[in-house]
Order: sequence, then C-alpha cells, then structure tokens
Amino acid sequence: MSTFKAKIYVTLKPSILDPQGRTVERALSHLGQQASGVRVGKYIELHMEGERSDVEARVQDVATTVLSNPVMEDVRWELEGA
Amino acid sequence: MSTFKAKIYVTLKPSILDPQGRTVERALSHLGQQASGVRVGKYIELHMEGERSDVEARVQDVATTVLSNPVMEDVRWELEGA
Repeated sequence: MSTFKAKIYVTLKPSILDPQGRTVERALSHLGQQASGVRVGKYIELHMEGERSDVEARVQDVATTVLSNPVMEDVRWELEGA
Repeated sequence: MSTFKAKIYVTLKPSILDPQGRTVERALSHLGQQASGVRVGKYIELHMEGERSDVEARVQDVATTVLSNPVMEDVRWELEGA
C-alpha cells in the first residue's frame, strides 16, 4: 500500500467554445498583453492509497466519470509517488 | 518570432481552505471512492508570439498579476514550442 498523488487536468474539447477563455483574452488585450487561444480548464490534485495498478484504475474511473463531462471535456492525468 | 504555448497552473495555497475540494472529496466518498487532500485549481492554456525570453517575462507577468491572486494562490507555468 502506497499513497499516490494524482494530478488531473480537465479541458474543454477544442470544438467547444470557451467564453471564459475569450473573456480572459479580451481582458489581457485591454491590459496590453497579446495572447491567443486562451482556454481555461480545471486542475485537480488528490491523494489515493493502494497498489499502483489499482490506484490507476480508480483515478481513471474518477477522472472520466465524476470530475469531467465526457461530452464536452477532455481529461488527462498523471500519478506521482512510490 | 515564434509562437509559444504556455500552460499555467493556479492552485490555492496549502494554508487556504478549499471548500470545492472538500465537496469533491465527500462526493467521491459517497460514490465509494476514497480520496484525500482533494484540491481544485485552474489550468490555463494560451499562445503568445515573440522571442523566448520576452514571452517568458510576459507569461510570468500575466500569470502572477492577472490570472492568479498572489494572496491566496500559487501559480506555476511552463512554456512549450520552438
């Protein structure tokens, strides 16, 4: 049994409009900073205990079914720890 | 002049309570998934054009002054691209 730290990144699918990102882009432009393609997503950290293969399966399950909406969002994750 | 992709991660400082994370933790627990230390942050992608050193300075500026609140949040970022 080890404790793993999972880092989960949730982003809107490229084909989905991101109004929050557009707003950030315009705000930056008003401040004199030119940026394009701004997309705002979520970054989730959590800890889980267990064997690596077991934790990988549980993180995959949680990331795809609870923490993201597979219709609109992509999710990727990585595990850190012994 | 090159185009760089910046990935910016904004997280609440460890000493700040994260009610959203606590809610996710409880929801997971109700679904039979034990996770601890859940923290919910932001993940922002954007593109900027320029020389690398110039883009690095601008991303640092944007990340620390616009995209995060230095009182409550930590921010880290990385650059991708030629």
